[in-house]
Amino acid sequence: MGAGEPSSFALEAAQRLGQLVAEAGWIVLTGGLPAGVMAAASGGAKTVRGSLTIGILPTGRNGPVSDQIDVAVFTDLGEARNAVNVLSSDVVVACGVEGPGTASEVALALRAGRPTVLLAPSPAAGAFFQTIGGGTTLHEAPTPEAVIRLIEERLGVPRWRAV
Amino acid sequence: MGAGEPSSFALEAAQRLGQLVAEAGWIVLTGGLPAGVMAAASGGAKTVRGSLTIGILPTGRNGPVSDQIDVAVFTDLGEARNAVNVLSSDVVVACGVEGPGTASEVALALRAGRPTVLLAPSPAAGAFFQTIGGGTTLHEAPTPEAVIRLIEERLGVPRWRAV
Amino acid sequence: MGAGEPSSFALEAAQRLGQLVAEAGWIVLTGGLPAGVMAAASGGAKTVRGSLTIGILPTGRNGPVSDQIDVAVFTDLGEARNAVNVLSSDVVVACGVEGPGTASEVALALRAGRPTVLLAPSPAAGAFFQTIGGGTTLHEAPTPEAVIRLIEERLGVPRWRAV
Amino acid sequence: MGAGEPSSFALEAAQRLGQLVAEAGWIVLTGGLPAGVMAAASGGAKTVRGSLTIGILPTGRNGPVSDQIDVAVFTDLGEARNAVNVLSSDVVVACGVEGPGTASEVALALRAGRPTVLLAPSPAAGAFFQTIGGGTTLHEAPTPEAVIRLIEERLGVPRWRAV
Repeated sequence: MGAGEPSSFALEAAQRLGQLVAEAGWIVLTGGLPAGVMAAASGGAKTVRGSLTIGILPTGRNGPVSDQIDVAVFTDLGEARNAVNVLSSDVVVACGVEGPGTASEVALALRAGRPTVLLAPSPAAGAFFQTIGGGTTLHEAPTPEAVIRLIEERLGVPRWRAV
Repeated sequence: MGAGEPSSFALEAAQRLGQLVAEAGWIVLTGGLPAGVMAAASGGAKTVRGSLTIGILPTGRNGPVSDQIDVAVFTDLGEARNAVNVLSSDVVVACGVEGPGTASEVALALRAGRPTVLLAPSPAAGAFFQTIGGGTTLHEAPTPEAVIRLIEERLGVPRWRAV
Repeated sequence: MGAGEPSSFALEAAQRLGQLVAEAGWIVLTGGLPAGVMAAASGGAKTVRGSLTIGILPTGRNGPVSDQIDVAVFTDLGEARNAVNVLSSDVVVACGVEGPGTASEVALALRAGRPTVLLAPSPAAGAFFQTIGGGTTLHEAPTPEAVIRLIEERLGVPRWRAV
Repeated sequence: MGAGEPSSFALEAAQRLGQLVAEAGWIVLTGGLPAGVMAAASGGAKTVRGSLTIGILPTGRNGPVSDQIDVAVFTDLGEARNAVNVLSSDVVVACGVEGPGTASEVALALRAGRPTVLLAPSPAAGAFFQTIGGGTTLHEAPTPEAVIRLIEERLGVPRWRAV
């Protein structure tokens, strides 16, 4: 998860994270739009042979879709689709929390008890989410590589297969 | 908006705010559950003759509803109903941001450009939301009375009528 | 519930039904758009002093709303809002089943076990819904007056108060 | 799409259709529950090497999921998820219209203008949906094989690849 207009750090981190997630054999699920962190993460995954990218879109079929998405789920739910994204994710990773859309997804993930990783959050974001969700579901990691290690080692999600 | 298990300060503020909103002739819209800030705000409103309280519930008809609610809208959307709450509100007031459900509503309100008031937020909440939504839509107020003044004077919402 | 572009019979029936529902002290809940059966039923209700009309809209706040609506709930859920409409209704009345939107609402009402009345349905609509929902929840009535009698006498919903 | 408690004809047709859809290289998207037409269609697809099955579930993660589903999208939207199913489908096929859930999906598909095929509908279902959706989007076919031909030849959806 991440902003439609992210910082260049978040954009590069998302691209790298998408690639690493796909190399681990996991599916990359994003909001599916042709912008920002969503497109970068999906694009990173699609550099890996056999990868699968899913986009949960806020619009119906007339809305824009990233061409890095293999399977588009058209919800036409507007921002209410953010709740679907986090419920459908085994692990939620926020590549920065730079806008209100991503903040809503982190909050909804904590609300639903989904394992959640903040990748290089701002101090304000890290401090705030610790106050409302400090428990077993909220984690921080400084780099995409550290996110993957955290998912494997601390969250116990096994690598899937050579895809 | 506010927590299902709020601090005693938030609970008293919600009750008082509900009363003041109803006295201004405005409708009180909450998440409708028989708990916390939702029930307190609706209960405050129902001490005012002619008040109207609306609850947008996460469940279908078999779920619990506060008996302070006049009109129950059963969505069965789970937490996705938070997006409906904020879109349907002329002004969103968070009585504390003490849990992830309320945090998601504040984030969704900022995302949708709804005028949003944080009533006595924690320093961490105030600082964080300023980083993602600092603009014309985010406000802070220390007391329920200050919230009402802000809505009338700065947001320009007129008192409705003697109900 | 009913079509956005209804027959003249359905339009007149909706206007009359809205008035009778309001005279019984009940709330009129519709899809809220400024068109067809929705606007006619709400308009009928608003000829009655003290009536209350609620519209559950498919759009966010930038979409059109009937000026006969007292309380607008903006869902931005598209057609998924049809499920909210029927869940929130004590009794669902379809003023004709002339289009797919209304058909989805009747089907969702039967699915949710809501008491459902078809007002003067076409033979094809009446026959079909009997095959999938023939049971205690599906009823037919030829006129708005007959709908009100059915709600009071067979469904046991009491008149509310002189509003 | 189809009933959770279908006739034996619908169940066999769904299993066969799922297999044929997968053999054409297309994705099978269902409601994802471990019951009826949903499980049969997904199970038919999973007899084909390289197939992909997606389930759009009405519950959160604590609800039941068919073990024939590769990718589970947990919506927690209740029956409102039916709108997501039909919007996300290139072609909607109803294996019988034996209950209100399926009827709502056919109606929502017609409403959204999705190409829709009724596989061996009852006379009442066929007659009714022709009255509300008779146009370019509604089709009938007597067998799974005829559905596939219709999708390829009349709807112009190309076979995808040997998977």
